Amino acid sequence: MSIENLSCNKSFGGWNKQYGHDSSALNCRMRFAIYLPPKVASGERVPVLYWLSGLTCTDENFMHKAGAQRMAAELGLAIVAPDTSPRGDEVANDEGYDLGQGAGFYVNATEAPWNRHYRMYDYITDELPKLIEANFPVTDQRAIAGHSMGGHGALMIALRNPERYRSVSAFSPISNPLNCPWGQKALSAYLGSDQAAWRDYDASVLMRQSEAKIPARVDQGDDDEFLAEQLKPETLEAAANANDYPLELHRHSGYDHSYFFIASFIEAHLRFHAGHLGL
Amino acid sequence: MSIENLSCNKSFGGWNKQYGHDSSALNCRMRFAIYLPPKVASGERVPVLYWLSGLTCTDENFMHKAGAQRMAAELGLAIVAPDTSPRGDEVANDEGYDLGQGAGFYVNATEAPWNRHYRMYDYITDELPKLIEANFPVTDQRAIAGHSMGGHGALMIALRNPERYRSVSAFSPISNPLNCPWGQKALSAYLGSDQAAWRDYDASVLMRQSEAKIPARVDQGDDDEFLAEQLKPETLEAAANANDYPLELHRHSGYDHSYFFIASFIEAHLRFHAGHLGL
Repeated sequence: MSIENLSCNKSFGGWNKQYGHDSSALNCRMRFAIYLPPKVASGERVPVLYWLSGLTCTDENFMHKAGAQRMAAELGLAIVAPDTSPRGDEVANDEGYDLGQGAGFYVNATEAPWNRHYRMYDYITDELPKLIEANFPVTDQRAIAGHSMGGHGALMIALRNPERYRSVSAFSPISNPLNCPWGQKALSAYLGSDQAAWRDYDASVLMRQSEAKIPARVDQGDDDEFLAEQLKPETLEAAANANDYPLELHRHSGYDHSYFFIASFIEAHLRFHAGHLGL
Repeated sequence: MSIENLSCNKSFGGWNKQYGHDSSALNCRMRFAIYLPPKVASGERVPVLYWLSGLTCTDENFMHKAGAQRMAAELGLAIVAPDTSPRGDEVANDEGYDLGQGAGFYVNATEAPWNRHYRMYDYITDELPKLIEANFPVTDQRAIAGHSMGGHGALMIALRNPERYRSVSAFSPISNPLNCPWGQKALSAYLGSDQAAWRDYDASVLMRQSEAKIPARVDQGDDDEFLAEQLKPETLEAAANANDYPLELHRHSGYDHSYFFIASFIEAHLRFHAGHLGL
């Protein structure tokens, strides 16, 4: 599993880098970003936060706009930001911003033409961490977080793999894709019309039935333009309450769906994960 | 002087906004961004830092990538980020990224076709502050800062108008445009071939002869790809030494010309200005 360094920028005493690699899960060339805190220069290994971005994003949006490196440097935490879908001329796509490239929804597609490349679930849960842990000075202690589509991806992946993550957090997640337009469009395309198959990829369904529990935090702005139709955090909250799941849901007056919201509270999320990662 | 609100995002308890307005200095429609810290909600007026961006930037780059809002909120400082040139189909342009739209160099052009719109010096020193002070809860206490072309613009404008600014700072400024390719290309186009006219717009020339002095800080990464050919901070440093000008020049090992560098040290710049603005 060879990786190719594409960029390196010093940032808060550490290093923000991009790498390219051939993905076997996705059957295409992929790019990811990684932030390594200054601590690694002394040979120390650090835990990793995986950040899953939202619709239309690449590996760059979070690293450029969230301002996360400051606290990651201070806490001694690496951050890995993968792309949001397979990419390339050979990869199926759609004209909408909410399906196809930039909109992988972190599932393993079973339907043509998507099933040839769209296996983001396997990529995030298995291939990418193996690559990271083989190539960088990190431990196998992981946390996972994300925004919107990626906030849902983080919750869904953590709920299905509680042994692999110490904690999970999300900004403005699509909380219940079974019951919103973005989720229904993507899941019907990637998984087919039988909604039984969708349930394994729905964080609200999973949170209601999960036996193993890890600390979860969600932050939601109440001026978010997608709140009522697409995000529905009350569904996730009801699932947590029904199953006594340790979910902290923080609502914030006046904040919207943008990176201005993420930047305002990323420090709180990083401190939340650091606490559970023993930093 | 009416202004039109184009966007509003809550950020660190304050508000990141964009406005459009007709500029008389530039003879076209312009857009700027402003960050207002939470303190203004209680009716208090705050001082303003003007941020001048570099080549190719708009009013958005700094507000999205520098992570400045956190400290501006804490310190109680407004930030105004103008665009880097006049804009529009009617405005002269060039195929290069370093001339024309996105590359106004903060001068008043005297040569055709540029002289019809390119009066960024007047816009930044006069029209924009009047607009800001008439429309927002700010005081007339100002500081000015910038990056690269905008770092030079901030130094040059502060050196020519020391009574208007309490302090000035720059990241990776083009320190001596008379003697580098970017500066020579832009100044010859905007001001003509007589280099005598260029000297009023060169920070190293101005710092060597300035009588009034305000606190100045420059930060420069030593892995900056433009350092030797375009930036030449040693010229500015020599001018400051020759004139006993209060310039702090901070060099940083391993940092480049990107916003990763700016983000890493923006807190230090905002604290520098806050100290001189009495915050």
